[in-house]
Amino acid sequence: MTDSTTCFSASDIEAMSKGFRTNFINSLSGFKAAALLGTTDGTTNNLAIMSSIVHVGANPPLLGMIMRPHTVQRDSLGNIKRQGVYTLNHVHTSWVDKAHQTSARYESNESEFDKVNLTPWYSNTFSAPYVAESAIKLGLKVAQHFTLCNKTEMVIGEVQQVFINEKYVDAEGYANIEHAGTACISGLDSYHSTSQIAQFSYAKPDQPLNKR
Amino acid sequence: MTDSTTCFSASDIEAMSKGFRTNFINSLSGFKAAALLGTTDGTTNNLAIMSSIVHVGANPPLLGMIMRPHTVQRDSLGNIKRQGVYTLNHVHTSWVDKAHQTSARYESNESEFDKVNLTPWYSNTFSAPYVAESAIKLGLKVAQHFTLCNKTEMVIGEVQQVFINEKYVDAEGYANIEHAGTACISGLDSYHSTSQIAQFSYAKPDQPLNKR
Repeated sequence: MTDSTTCFSASDIEAMSKGFRTNFINSLSGFKAAALLGTTDGTTNNLAIMSSIVHVGANPPLLGMIMRPHTVQRDSLGNIKRQGVYTLNHVHTSWVDKAHQTSARYESNESEFDKVNLTPWYSNTFSAPYVAESAIKLGLKVAQHFTLCNKTEMVIGEVQQVFINEKYVDAEGYANIEHAGTACISGLDSYHSTSQIAQFSYAKPDQPLNKR
Repeated sequence: MTDSTTCFSASDIEAMSKGFRTNFINSLSGFKAAALLGTTDGTTNNLAIMSSIVHVGANPPLLGMIMRPHTVQRDSLGNIKRQGVYTLNHVHTSWVDKAHQTSARYESNESEFDKVNLTPWYSNTFSAPYVAESAIKLGLKVAQHFTLCNKTEMVIGEVQQVFINEKYVDAEGYANIEHAGTACISGLDSYHSTSQIAQFSYAKPDQPLNKR
């Protein structure tokens, strides 16, 4: 450790201004997926940028997300509770501005699709709207929904449909989301492209890693 | 939608081989934080690569992670249950190989720190080991711990300590993890560096976004 490293204690963090602390803590969890949450109340389509998505399991295929019920996410969460289905659509590096603009506080009867100029698209067999411009689109139904210790809500969804060009999926099942143009997020408002450093083989004790 | 986009249904996903499905679903959640989980049983220090970290809240400062109790994460999870504290240490783009090698199935009495050649470091006031080489180090204590619908376990920790060079933290609290060299992950085994595209101001309806 060099002298230039600072220790922020729990009381230092508590003493930060609300805005400073929000930016600081949101940065520290590392890079985050950038996806748009698509929902509908049957009349108005809702679109919301999400950065708190987490892989829960592959069999069954489950993704979790943390939602804040008293924020701009209120309408999306209400739609999920009523409809039981939603979509997650990867944000492309070429339109991160449109994705971020969905975080503005629009009226409940206004569709963020219209406001940010993204296109709703429907599959024949799923009632929540997808984002046509997304190279990777997931349709999910709610598998579990509960409240966490800080009154945020965790929604776990089971993947029902995946739309992706097979050219991005290799022989082992890995989907090359970098080639598909997927962006990532840090903090509340910073968007990033990526460059692959390495992809490794399954690690075994006392054997050198191979790249694959 | 172009003709080249394929729809994978729930039954298509169920019919995939285990390995293919695991790679596929793990890729679809988007880019993920790359952090090393540091724990101890009092004798042996454990270090495990984590890619399922999620921001839960800023006040109090809470991070969640999904853990698999019947995998190589077993020892780390046992240490967390017994000790109640753990560290999360950002993985630097220059040593993603060492980070990935921690996923090998070492014996319970072997320390991954030794095996992958990373250095345990302790603060005076925290009993779990940090990774000296990490530019951003977080010390957490368990705030909530429960089992999810697929028998994985979610651990939510409250941040007790943050070690970071203040040169990475801007006047608004944003920690520039890209400048700090933090890597990100896609799928199970692909590591990436990032390039910032844009950082935006708070979005408001019917106003153009500003970069900040």
